[in-house]
Amino acid sequence: MAEVEVKIFPIEVLREFSTRVFLHFGLPKEGAAQAADVLAVADLRGIDSHGVARLYSYFGLLSEGLINPKPRVQIVRSTASTATVDGDNGLGLVVGPQANQIAMDMAEKAGSGWVSVRNTNHYGIAGYYVLQALQRDMIGWAMTNSTKLVTPLWGAERMLGTNPIAIAFPGKEEPAIVIDMATCAAAYGKIEMARRKRTSIPRGWAIDKNGHSTTDPDDIPGGGALLPLGSDRERGGHKGYGLAIMVDILSGLLSGANWGPFAPPFALRLEVPKRSVGKGIGHFFGAMRIDGFLDVDEFKRQVDDYVRTFRATKPAPGTNGPLIPGDPEREAEKVRRKEGIPLVLPVVEDLREISKKTGVPFA
Amino acid sequence: MAEVEVKIFPIEVLREFSTRVFLHFGLPKEGAAQAADVLAVADLRGIDSHGVARLYSYFGLLSEGLINPKPRVQIVRSTASTATVDGDNGLGLVVGPQANQIAMDMAEKAGSGWVSVRNTNHYGIAGYYVLQALQRDMIGWAMTNSTKLVTPLWGAERMLGTNPIAIAFPGKEEPAIVIDMATCAAAYGKIEMARRKRTSIPRGWAIDKNGHSTTDPDDIPGGGALLPLGSDRERGGHKGYGLAIMVDILSGLLSGANWGPFAPPFALRLEVPKRSVGKGIGHFFGAMRIDGFLDVDEFKRQVDDYVRTFRATKPAPGTNGPLIPGDPEREAEKVRRKEGIPLVLPVVEDLREISKKTGVPFA
Repeated sequence: MAEVEVKIFPIEVLREFSTRVFLHFGLPKEGAAQAADVLAVADLRGIDSHGVARLYSYFGLLSEGLINPKPRVQIVRSTASTATVDGDNGLGLVVGPQANQIAMDMAEKAGSGWVSVRNTNHYGIAGYYVLQALQRDMIGWAMTNSTKLVTPLWGAERMLGTNPIAIAFPGKEEPAIVIDMATCAAAYGKIEMARRKRTSIPRGWAIDKNGHSTTDPDDIPGGGALLPLGSDRERGGHKGYGLAIMVDILSGLLSGANWGPFAPPFALRLEVPKRSVGKGIGHFFGAMRIDGFLDVDEFKRQVDDYVRTFRATKPAPGTNGPLIPGDPEREAEKVRRKEGIPLVLPVVEDLREISKKTGVPFA
Repeated sequence: MAEVEVKIFPIEVLREFSTRVFLHFGLPKEGAAQAADVLAVADLRGIDSHGVARLYSYFGLLSEGLINPKPRVQIVRSTASTATVDGDNGLGLVVGPQANQIAMDMAEKAGSGWVSVRNTNHYGIAGYYVLQALQRDMIGWAMTNSTKLVTPLWGAERMLGTNPIAIAFPGKEEPAIVIDMATCAAAYGKIEMARRKRTSIPRGWAIDKNGHSTTDPDDIPGGGALLPLGSDRERGGHKGYGLAIMVDILSGLLSGANWGPFAPPFALRLEVPKRSVGKGIGHFFGAMRIDGFLDVDEFKRQVDDYVRTFRATKPAPGTNGPLIPGDPEREAEKVRRKEGIPLVLPVVEDLREISKKTGVPFA
C-alpha cells in the first residue's frame, strides 16, 4: 500500500494550460477561459477526477473533431420559466455555463428558471453551476446524465451514469451549504485508487460482470458495474436507483438527449452505444430566486442558524460530529489555493502528451 | 416469527370512516373527502404506515384542538412561478393538496410552479401529490420535512425527519415511473415490524442512543435514530444526509416553517421540541409542464421506451431483474382494490377507539 506519488502545480499554471489547449482547438477566448475555469474549480475543491485530469478526454474528443469547438447554443422551446436548450454538440464546459445562465436569467424575471439541455457533452462538476447561482442570491440546481457505469438494483449490467445532483444554499456569516453528489454508492475514482494500491473494496460498491457483489476492484473494469446509492435492497438501493433515473429523465429524456445505456462515452477508448435515442448527453439546471419565497437576508440568517445547529449535533463515537455538505471541498480549496494542486503521475504524463501534440507549453 | 394477524377491509369502508371522522371535527365536506382520499391512496398503494393507520394521530391532534379544521390557506409571497404558502395550521392532508394545486396552476401559466409551505402538518404520502400532476401532463415534485427521527452521518442523535422526495413521469402505454422515497436507509415501519416479530435488523439501518451501529430494533425507540440513505461514510451516508438537508431547507427553512430537530411531532405522545424556529412543518411542491420542454406525446413515448429498456436489463443472479419505480405500489393497488386493505390488529383497535370517542360507526 505505497503512497501514491504526486507532483504539485499552482492552480494558475493548470488554468493557463487548459485555456491554451482549448484555444488551440479553436474555442473562442471566452469559451476557453470558461471551460478552464470549470476544471480549475474542480481541482481547487479537491474533486480530482473532474479537474485537469479530465483534460485528456476532452483533448481526445476535440482532436478527433467529435466535439464542436464553436457551438451555437440555442433555446429551441420555452415558456416563462422553462426551456429546452440545444448545445450544438459543444464542450459541456461551455454549454453548461451558458444553459445555467439561461436558467438564472429566466429566474430573474419569472421567479424560477428550469433548463433541460441536449446535444451536449460532459460538463465537469455539478457543484460549479450551483455556486454560480449563489452569487445571484438564487438556489441553484444542477444535474447531468453520463456514460453508463451503474447497474439498476437487481441488474447485472451498466445501464445508468453516475448521474449527480447538486444544490446549494447561501449563508450570511456561515459558508454556503453545497450538496454535490453522484447517485451511486461510491465514486469510480475510489475503485481506481483501490486498483492502484492493490487493496480490496468494501461490499456495497460494485458488482462483477455476472452481477455478483464483489470486493475486487479489478472486477469493475472487467465488465462489472457500480451499485446505486443504498447498495442493496435492504439498505435502500432502490432509492439510489430511483434518483439516478430522475436525473437521467430530467437531463436526457426531457431534453431529447440520449439516456440510460445510450448516453455516449466521454472518452475515445470507451465503447459507443449501439443505439442512439437522442442527441449527445443531457444536463438539467434550475434556479429559484430566494426572494421569490422569503427575504434573502432572513433566509441567510436561518441558514447560519441551521449550520450552527447541525455542527452542534452530538458526535458519533470516534468522530468529530457531522460535517456540513460542502465542508470537505471548502477545506480542500483553502489548502490548494495556498499550496497548489497535487496531480498523480499518470495525469502529469497525460498533460505532457497533450503539450507535445498541441505545442502548448506545459511546466 | 409468527405471521402478523390482519383484518381485511374494503377501501370504501375505510375511506367513508375517515371522511366521517374528519367531518366530526368540523372539516368542510370537500376537505374531509380530500383528506380521506390521501389516506386511501396510501392504503391502496401498500404504504400502510401512511394510510388509515395514521388516522389515530390526526384524531388525537384534532381532539386536542392542535390542528385547525378550517384553515384559510394563503399565498403570502409570490412571483410568476414561485410562492410561499401559509397553511394556517391546517391538516397537511388538506393544505398539501391545495398548495400542490397552486403549483400546478402556476405551471399552467408560467411553465413551472414551485411552492414552499409553512404552518402545516403531516401530509400523507409524497407520492399522492406527484400522481395529481400526472393527470395534468406535468412532472410533479413533492417533498416534506417531518419530526426528527434520523441522525446526520457521524451524529449520535435525531436531527432530521425521514424527509421524502417524490417525482413522477408519465408513460403512454407503459405505466408512469413514480419515485417516492424517504431519504433514510430504511423506513421506521420496518423497525416496528422487527420489534413485533422479535427479529434483529440489518446493520446500516440505525444507531442506538450512544451513536453506535445497532441490530436491535428496540434500540431505536430507546433513544436511537435511523441512519440516512447510504448508512455509513464508506457507502455514501453523507449523500442521504445531504438529501435530507435539501428537503428540509426547501420545505421548512425556505417557507418559514420549523426545520431540523425543531419540526413539531405528528402525534400527541411525542416530545415537543424545546425551540421553535418557524411555524408548523413545511412542504415543497413543484410542477413543470412537460410541453414546456418537449411534446407531451414524444415525452410519453420515450418514457415507454425507457421503461421497456430497463425491464430488459440483464437480471442479477437470484432476482427477476430490476423493477421500475412505482411497480410495487401499482401491484399492491391492483390486489387491494379487489381484495381489500389488510390492517394489523393494533390499527383496527385504534379505529374502534376513534369510533367510540367520536360516535362515527366503524364496521
